Amino acid sequence: MNNSYPGKLYLALVHHPVKNKNGEIIASAVTNLDLHDISRAAKTYGAEAFYVVTPLDDQRTLVEELVSHWTTGRGGDYNPMRREALELIRVRKDLSRVIDEIRLQDGRPVKVVATRAAESTGQLEFAEFRHLLAEGSCSYLLLLGTAWGLADAVLDAADYVLTPIRGNTAYNHLSVRSAAAIILDRILGHTG
Amino acid sequence: MNNSYPGKLYLALVHHPVKNKNGEIIASAVTNLDLHDISRAAKTYGAEAFYVVTPLDDQRTLVEELVSHWTTGRGGDYNPMRREALELIRVRKDLSRVIDEIRLQDGRPVKVVATRAAESTGQLEFAEFRHLLAEGSCSYLLLLGTAWGLADAVLDAADYVLTPIRGNTAYNHLSVRSAAAIILDRILGHTG
Repeated sequence: MNNSYPGKLYLALVHHPVKNKNGEIIASAVTNLDLHDISRAAKTYGAEAFYVVTPLDDQRTLVEELVSHWTTGRGGDYNPMRREALELIRVRKDLSRVIDEIRLQDGRPVKVVATRAAESTGQLEFAEFRHLLAEGSCSYLLLLGTAWGLADAVLDAADYVLTPIRGNTAYNHLSVRSAAAIILDRILGHTG
Repeated sequence: MNNSYPGKLYLALVHHPVKNKNGEIIASAVTNLDLHDISRAAKTYGAEAFYVVTPLDDQRTLVEELVSHWTTGRGGDYNPMRREALELIRVRKDLSRVIDEIRLQDGRPVKVVATRAAESTGQLEFAEFRHLLAEGSCSYLLLLGTAWGLADAVLDAADYVLTPIRGNTAYNHLSVRSAAAIILDRILGHTG
């Protein structure tokens, strides 16, 4: 990792439990380009790892195959930059395993920061998140929801819920790939 | 459009002339998710239009079909938020048509701002671009390159070349989708 901030940031792209269009809890399918785009952004901004979380065995196998194509297979020779990014990916069955793994690895508390598109009370501002990362006494796990967003149970269990991204219109339907890039830039980027 | 800034910003995703891995000039294939992600980000940040530029007739037909599925077809009923975003897309043959069209429509000069991943001399800083948009005497066309980036001829002909996005590592291989989102947030977003 880079040394410009002492806090360690991890990303998790959550495929279960998330909501569908009708607010029901589902396990979403993994989208190939999510893996490429978010791992490249994670690498650019110095995140420690990018967890892809799904309880579906065949989906985890699929992701492992894609990652190994680019990291140890022919894809890595063709495009070493993809390899470097996709090496950040860790495929896991559920969030509790992810949190335990980070805690064990870093030997300090893990704070979970959930994201959502709608406003809520007591949400974590971007500037405050920057500050927490700079302060650096904990590891932080940023949760990104697929489909229609993280289940309420995940939001309720999180230590923080991050302020939604607002552009300068009432429209706020960014893809999870775009949202991940903007969040990383806001909390770790040096804008000029 | 929204009224929070008087300058008008247009985006163009350029598929020709761009470079391939070996630096040769090519026409790249249109990527479906580029259209979705960048139009949603453009809508979120209040861009005027999102031009998809390719000289290939079959590619333009493909994009027109995809856009009409979501704007006037069944996709629009299923997901009105996609419709609103994809309505920003205009498919054009080359950049000179795009520039002429904007000039004619807005009745004022059009300044072209190119983007690239490598540093160059005299580049436009993000803060300066914000200022130019706020000042608002011109329309601005932001060029995003596909494949391995915009051809040198496009960079040379542009009025400005925007500072590359730096995260906080030496790695700078964001997808064009991520880069577009971050650039829009930096020049038009209100970060908190």
